[in-house]
Amino acid sequence: MQTVAIVGVGLIGGSFGLALKAHGFPGEIVGVSSPGSIEAAVQSRAIDRGAALAEAVKDADLVYLAQPIGRILSTLHLLNPLVKADALVTDAGSTKHLIVETARKHLHRCAFLGGHPMAGKESRGVANADAALFRNAQYCLTPSDPAELEKPAAREFRDWIGRFGAREVVVGADEHDRMVALSSHLPQLASTALASLLADDDELLAGPGLLGATRLAMSSYEIWRDILMTNSGAISEALTAYIQKLEYLRESLRSRAMEEEFQRASETAGKLR
Amino acid sequence: MQTVAIVGVGLIGGSFGLALKAHGFPGEIVGVSSPGSIEAAVQSRAIDRGAALAEAVKDADLVYLAQPIGRILSTLHLLNPLVKADALVTDAGSTKHLIVETARKHLHRCAFLGGHPMAGKESRGVANADAALFRNAQYCLTPSDPAELEKPAAREFRDWIGRFGAREVVVGADEHDRMVALSSHLPQLASTALASLLADDDELLAGPGLLGATRLAMSSYEIWRDILMTNSGAISEALTAYIQKLEYLRESLRSRAMEEEFQRASETAGKLR
Repeated sequence: MQTVAIVGVGLIGGSFGLALKAHGFPGEIVGVSSPGSIEAAVQSRAIDRGAALAEAVKDADLVYLAQPIGRILSTLHLLNPLVKADALVTDAGSTKHLIVETARKHLHRCAFLGGHPMAGKESRGVANADAALFRNAQYCLTPSDPAELEKPAAREFRDWIGRFGAREVVVGADEHDRMVALSSHLPQLASTALASLLADDDELLAGPGLLGATRLAMSSYEIWRDILMTNSGAISEALTAYIQKLEYLRESLRSRAMEEEFQRASETAGKLR
Repeated sequence: MQTVAIVGVGLIGGSFGLALKAHGFPGEIVGVSSPGSIEAAVQSRAIDRGAALAEAVKDADLVYLAQPIGRILSTLHLLNPLVKADALVTDAGSTKHLIVETARKHLHRCAFLGGHPMAGKESRGVANADAALFRNAQYCLTPSDPAELEKPAAREFRDWIGRFGAREVVVGADEHDRMVALSSHLPQLASTALASLLADDDELLAGPGLLGATRLAMSSYEIWRDILMTNSGAISEALTAYIQKLEYLRESLRSRAMEEEFQRASETAGKLR
């Protein structure tokens, strides 16, 4: 792996470049992004230089797509004639079904492996990029066929994310989407719903718990639009299960069943820590 | 105000004692609590000494009830024959209807003023008490009649919480309970429901947002039992409104209405900060 193209140099793309450099990647990293992001990324040494898509990917052994989902889909429509034949294209999009399907349809001349690093920060942009972002984070890989993981370019890519300290989780694209609908998209909508409901009250009595519960509600729709659009089926099912659970709690306010729910919840919350 | 009795010397009771001392209270503070809490509270100087309830309150100008709600209710059944006639009894219980009603029924020989400091920490107990706990926090007072606020003992108490840096919010007990059902009890159950739902999955893909969303789910049922029991009506209504909002989001996953919900939520979450 001599040359890497990072398409979309924001928090994730920038952190990927910084992590490569921090772990001794000796080759060139070319970024494709807005002029402002390119300038900031070159300054922070997340990338060596910026280029247009066609030029950036023509010599790249690894093409890392770290744009918003809708932009990843657009890029996947363009890449096939531009890439090297033995390159690996991978992505960091947070829903996988549509991305994997689009890659399968449009990318024939080189390998593709869907990915999703379970890492992030409240603050976006390459200015917040961090070489240690992937350390101790899960990194989902969603091959359509397990053999995709064993191709030389894929093995090399997986070696790098291992060096970054990420924990590889191999899972099918649809199963991934079902899992993140519950563990990521549902918490977002639960927080958004709570904060939106509270907007009706002029004065709020705000204890310390409310700040944590409404933190995700600060997220921008710009990011979430594509996620909601490309995973609406699984999210709808997660919301239905959540609503059923809330209805059960409402029936159980004064009963022993509530104690079991608190215990079950507290054990699960504890395991996540 | 020469002598204060703090009944229940945990996080809130201990912090109240420390705050009094930190702001120059010259009198004696007597604590009523378990032997372990009394020992720790004397050591940290949150109280001067421990005593049984009858002895602690007989000379007290202020009786500060900082037990769990159920214990506050029990204490209110006992206090009337024990208190000084010009004393003020106040409490820090997090639901107010039943406490205020019980005080009105059973406490005739001295004044009562319901209270609820909107302050807390994840870690409980007098070991975590903090003289600055009330600083910048809302402090609810729930008089049955506005005249309760103007009695000399109540004015003196209010002066102290003002010195602690707390912001007084005067509100009726029922309105208080409706407000905290939305802003405190609902967030707790939303987090408990989420974590309980996730317990079904063996492996979780956990991004950084999930930790915040399940933080409240770590809370112990021991604290929440009394809250849920004494505010089930308002909590049930809050859950119903929340479920309706979630159903609306489920219908709006792919529509423009979602953008408005994100905006509304993000503005409200921003205002809380």
